[in-house]
Amino acid sequence: MFKKVLVANRGEIAVRIIRSLREMGIKTVAIYSTADKDSLHVQLADEAVCVGGPQPSSSYLNIKNILAAAVGTGAEAIHPGYGFLSESADFAKMCQECGLTFIGPKAETIDLMGNKEHARQMMIKHGVPVTPGSESFIDSADEAKTIAAKIGYPVLLKAAAGGGGKGIRQVARPEDMAAALASAQSEAKTDFGDDRMYLEKVMQNVKHIEVQIFRDQFGQTVYFPERDCSLQRNKQKVLEESPCDLITDEERAHLGQIAVQAAEAADYVNTGTIEFLMDQDHHFYFMEMNTRIQVEHTVTEMVTGVDLVKAQIQVASGEKLPFTQADLKAKGHAIECRINAEDPENNFMPSVGKVDYLFLPIGNPGMRIDTALYQNEQISPFYDSMLAKVVAFGRTRAEAIAKMKRLLHELILRGIHTNQEFHLAILNDPGFIAGNFTNTYLEKEFLLKWKESLKDEAVSA
Amino acid sequence: MFKKVLVANRGEIAVRIIRSLREMGIKTVAIYSTADKDSLHVQLADEAVCVGGPQPSSSYLNIKNILAAAVGTGAEAIHPGYGFLSESADFAKMCQECGLTFIGPKAETIDLMGNKEHARQMMIKHGVPVTPGSESFIDSADEAKTIAAKIGYPVLLKAAAGGGGKGIRQVARPEDMAAALASAQSEAKTDFGDDRMYLEKVMQNVKHIEVQIFRDQFGQTVYFPERDCSLQRNKQKVLEESPCDLITDEERAHLGQIAVQAAEAADYVNTGTIEFLMDQDHHFYFMEMNTRIQVEHTVTEMVTGVDLVKAQIQVASGEKLPFTQADLKAKGHAIECRINAEDPENNFMPSVGKVDYLFLPIGNPGMRIDTALYQNEQISPFYDSMLAKVVAFGRTRAEAIAKMKRLLHELILRGIHTNQEFHLAILNDPGFIAGNFTNTYLEKEFLLKWKESLKDEAVSA
Repeated sequence: MFKKVLVANRGEIAVRIIRSLREMGIKTVAIYSTADKDSLHVQLADEAVCVGGPQPSSSYLNIKNILAAAVGTGAEAIHPGYGFLSESADFAKMCQECGLTFIGPKAETIDLMGNKEHARQMMIKHGVPVTPGSESFIDSADEAKTIAAKIGYPVLLKAAAGGGGKGIRQVARPEDMAAALASAQSEAKTDFGDDRMYLEKVMQNVKHIEVQIFRDQFGQTVYFPERDCSLQRNKQKVLEESPCDLITDEERAHLGQIAVQAAEAADYVNTGTIEFLMDQDHHFYFMEMNTRIQVEHTVTEMVTGVDLVKAQIQVASGEKLPFTQADLKAKGHAIECRINAEDPENNFMPSVGKVDYLFLPIGNPGMRIDTALYQNEQISPFYDSMLAKVVAFGRTRAEAIAKMKRLLHELILRGIHTNQEFHLAILNDPGFIAGNFTNTYLEKEFLLKWKESLKDEAVSA
Repeated sequence: MFKKVLVANRGEIAVRIIRSLREMGIKTVAIYSTADKDSLHVQLADEAVCVGGPQPSSSYLNIKNILAAAVGTGAEAIHPGYGFLSESADFAKMCQECGLTFIGPKAETIDLMGNKEHARQMMIKHGVPVTPGSESFIDSADEAKTIAAKIGYPVLLKAAAGGGGKGIRQVARPEDMAAALASAQSEAKTDFGDDRMYLEKVMQNVKHIEVQIFRDQFGQTVYFPERDCSLQRNKQKVLEESPCDLITDEERAHLGQIAVQAAEAADYVNTGTIEFLMDQDHHFYFMEMNTRIQVEHTVTEMVTGVDLVKAQIQVASGEKLPFTQADLKAKGHAIECRINAEDPENNFMPSVGKVDYLFLPIGNPGMRIDTALYQNEQISPFYDSMLAKVVAFGRTRAEAIAKMKRLLHELILRGIHTNQEFHLAILNDPGFIAGNFTNTYLEKEFLLKWKESLKDEAVSA
């Protein structure tokens, strides 16, 4: 096992990883930007190295400085957390070249899964269902129209090398195809230097369902109960839960098998998550694979009782998976609310300032709050607005909802705007409570209702 | 189910009960003394009623004012927590007379178990093993000597109506029996108006092992994995854990059966705990039964995943037990450290003052902190010195110990003395780590070693 590990991240995930390392008796090295010198992850680590200025590009994305910090402190491995360098195949490769273990999948796997069309092709080749679409790159508007006519409009034209919403066009009618293709290709050429395109059907009335898998170097592979992450705004997950009550045990086992199959096909090592769309008939379509630990891994830990970060470290050091498939049945239901520094009533504008008063409602069974917050902390404008992950567990979904409402009623975060009340509105919403919401429900239905309710409150006040 | 419940307690247990009630959709009424007007339990409850001055006798033991508060606010039931009125048969009876449900066993059961010799007789009658001793009251020193010769010295002479260490004498030799009996009887007559005595063997090299049971009004009875509460100082538990790793599954099932048998014999309803002594040969001897929820119920919740306070409320309202015996297997190991406002280096002198800075290390899987503390709180001198219960869970005992050490290293409680460092010393002690310590280990062995180590530190400093 490693004696010292560098954590190449900040905020709650850095704190969370440092804590697991400490429990394993492993020394920890934190990195930080000048803006983060007083951050909790810096205080909790055994050593901390400043790797640059406040901008992520100068610090948390500064590969050279991070590798120098790892080598200089004698760390044997690097845990990248999520975001920043966690899905950089280059970084994983450079770790290897410096003799450091990258705690995550192999660089080639990150690279393969990072190219969406390649990942899609690999899934098709191994019999994993994908969103209906082209079977490889498309060469002309006519070919695109032929495929679109077969699978049904609307469709998405997507750049194979794409990302961040660039090089994508939604096409509703055949007569718009040629212009959309030309425009998307031109953008892709400019942005990625690669104008290869593929085509996918726009799936409607679908849920975002994802399955986390774990695989060790000996080929043992397991899957975890699925997460329902359908509640999203601006492509960001807002509230996640596990399991999805609509899915039967048979469907769960089937979905798990698909995920395991995909992981084995990719010769995947460590943990990753396969994102699917689920239609009204409970057909699942591969969307993409995330090759990192995710924000929402907490709900999986809550329902299964495992420590996924510890397992990442164990598997990266060459140990066997510390659990078997039989250990991973959901023992109840868990929900996570992402508490962000933002003002929902003002178009979710990010909020900065000092946390004047902090009360975290800890205690009682079945709850967890992962955060790097502390009393009097100054929230900086340079990073992600997520301040805390509040997680509630119950034997049933209703019990988890009741617990989450209690937790959010008690939580006090004074000095900055947060989306705490917005989450409470979701938890009280009949559409949420019913559970059959789709991945557009929050933006297209709930937000409108919620804005109306604010107006009503203003009138009655 | 009740619509409104009064919580007749303060501190962490009041907060813990209010939280469960809130999650069940039940309105809560807090009571408080004038010293507690700013306490967390008052802030969290829907309503709060001041029931008297700082002294417990004027407020938290003031039956008249508490019943008036319950009737006046329209509460339907009272949860007594632990301590204060939780084991007062009179209070339970008066609740009933006021048409209020007492959330706990029947008044007659509390009464029966409160008289230690009656409880002991009942256990003997139903075949539950008890500490070797007299089979009923003893009439003379000669009778006492005959029994003592049979079971072996040293023995304890105990007043049947006793409590709080009064009316008890330890006798090591037959020639001391007559004087000890006379003296104990005289004290018992004065203190309790009842000089009936019984005799018990002093058990040596034993562990304090306790088994919590739960029984509903329909006669369904379950037991929970045992707790090892052997680490005590001044008859107060310091650190508790569950399960006890020395006990085999067969022994556990056997012990559970004894506990269930005892609960059924007493026609017990709701939860209670049977305390046993376990000798080196793993024979178990009934000591006494606690008819309340206990401080250390948290470790049982951690290893089984149930909410015992919710279950108390459900069963008191006439519902069936929300779990079966099959649900109650330990899923790992849990440890609780009681963090007290006291100064171990100064003979555990209670400490009062303002909590200038509070950092509770929440986050990550497998931990829980139950506390009514908040930043800037003034710790009052009127009540129990326990400030927080830190609970760690791991798949194994070693994992739970590692997690607890991490938690106590992170915990910051500035402004008052606490036993945080003392707990860390226990967690690092080879005798604790080995696990086979007895109920005198902490006071007779560990404390001496610890005091020596402090001297060494002082010399080397």
